[in-house]
Amino acid sequence: MRLAELSARSGVSTATIKYYLREGLLHPGRRVTATQAEYDEEHLRRLRLVRAMIQVGRIPVNSAREVLAALGDEELGPGERLGTAVWALPHGPAPDEADPATESARHTADALLDRLGWARDKAGAACGPAYGMLVAAITALARLGYPCAVDDLAPYARAAEAIAVSDLDVVERYATPDEQVEAAVALTVLYEPVLLSLRRLAEAEESIRRFGGG
Amino acid sequence: MRLAELSARSGVSTATIKYYLREGLLHPGRRVTATQAEYDEEHLRRLRLVRAMIQVGRIPVNSAREVLAALGDEELGPGERLGTAVWALPHGPAPDEADPATESARHTADALLDRLGWARDKAGAACGPAYGMLVAAITALARLGYPCAVDDLAPYARAAEAIAVSDLDVVERYATPDEQVEAAVALTVLYEPVLLSLRRLAEAEESIRRFGGG
Repeated sequence: MRLAELSARSGVSTATIKYYLREGLLHPGRRVTATQAEYDEEHLRRLRLVRAMIQVGRIPVNSAREVLAALGDEELGPGERLGTAVWALPHGPAPDEADPATESARHTADALLDRLGWARDKAGAACGPAYGMLVAAITALARLGYPCAVDDLAPYARAAEAIAVSDLDVVERYATPDEQVEAAVALTVLYEPVLLSLRRLAEAEESIRRFGGG
Repeated sequence: MRLAELSARSGVSTATIKYYLREGLLHPGRRVTATQAEYDEEHLRRLRLVRAMIQVGRIPVNSAREVLAALGDEELGPGERLGTAVWALPHGPAPDEADPATESARHTADALLDRLGWARDKAGAACGPAYGMLVAAITALARLGYPCAVDDLAPYARAAEAIAVSDLDVVERYATPDEQVEAAVALTVLYEPVLLSLRRLAEAEESIRRFGGG
């Protein structure tokens, strides 16, 4: 398909598509004349992912480019590509290693992962940006004196396990490993606001159940 | 206590405390001399909440001020104060009413709330910013062609219910209604990065379980 059709089918303006092409977020089409290129279904799929990351997830262009590089790395298997791509997604502030509270938060995070039986060595779960984000969040809770012991956090981790099962169930509906990996990255980003809004609605519901009002 | 002690006990610099006082995020201390004021435990507690919102939650000062106004509204009962305060927290982009996909997303959101048995009229769950955030998120999923039917979203809502039970269990540990309402707002903000990081770690774990690798 030509640029105009790619734009119509994706709902992304031709100007934005050209910007993504210039920024290397979309691989070039097959050149057919000096001024025209031909695009295929893979461009369309990639464009969806780029929109999910940039427009919905508000992920910086540089991070999006890193995610896409990981997805396109032929040297890696699907599992590794997914891990590397999610690794490249923004994760909020990293823990402040100069803060003595960070060390204690790290112990709490490790104890939590141990209790859950989540792999810490093989999976790299005890390092990496998601682990760093958890440590930074526990540090903030501790510094402000809010509950953040393993017992306080375990129910959230159990809920996260249920969520991850749903996430991977959705991913497995896609046919090819390429599509699965792309969907996993997009859904990691796109379901975050779903989850956060449902939590607030559920809190309102639970709050009325316990305290009344409305 | 004097400003210096408030700073030492809260870990917030005196310059930042003075900024919060100027911005009306902290009520003035009891003036004891022309240049000195006396602060109490309530200032300390409020300061923790302000830090949670601004430094950790990156909530704009104006939104934080609205949240605090709701918390301090003597005309409202605790349940209403909590609802109004959480209402004032930032919720991401509102749905685009000009987009025809928004109407369809609204039907999905309503069908989801009905299936869950969440109150739609009394609780205001079918309006308000958390509901708007959900509709915007479903619209984005639909526009990009990702799964967003009621059956796709229900597992996330069930997980959100479990999370809300934990949230309210923590809130109920606080003794007074004032403390409970403050804690509810702080924990809504502070547990978001905990939840999102645990979801990514759980996804990595579940991904290895299904696809192998590491």
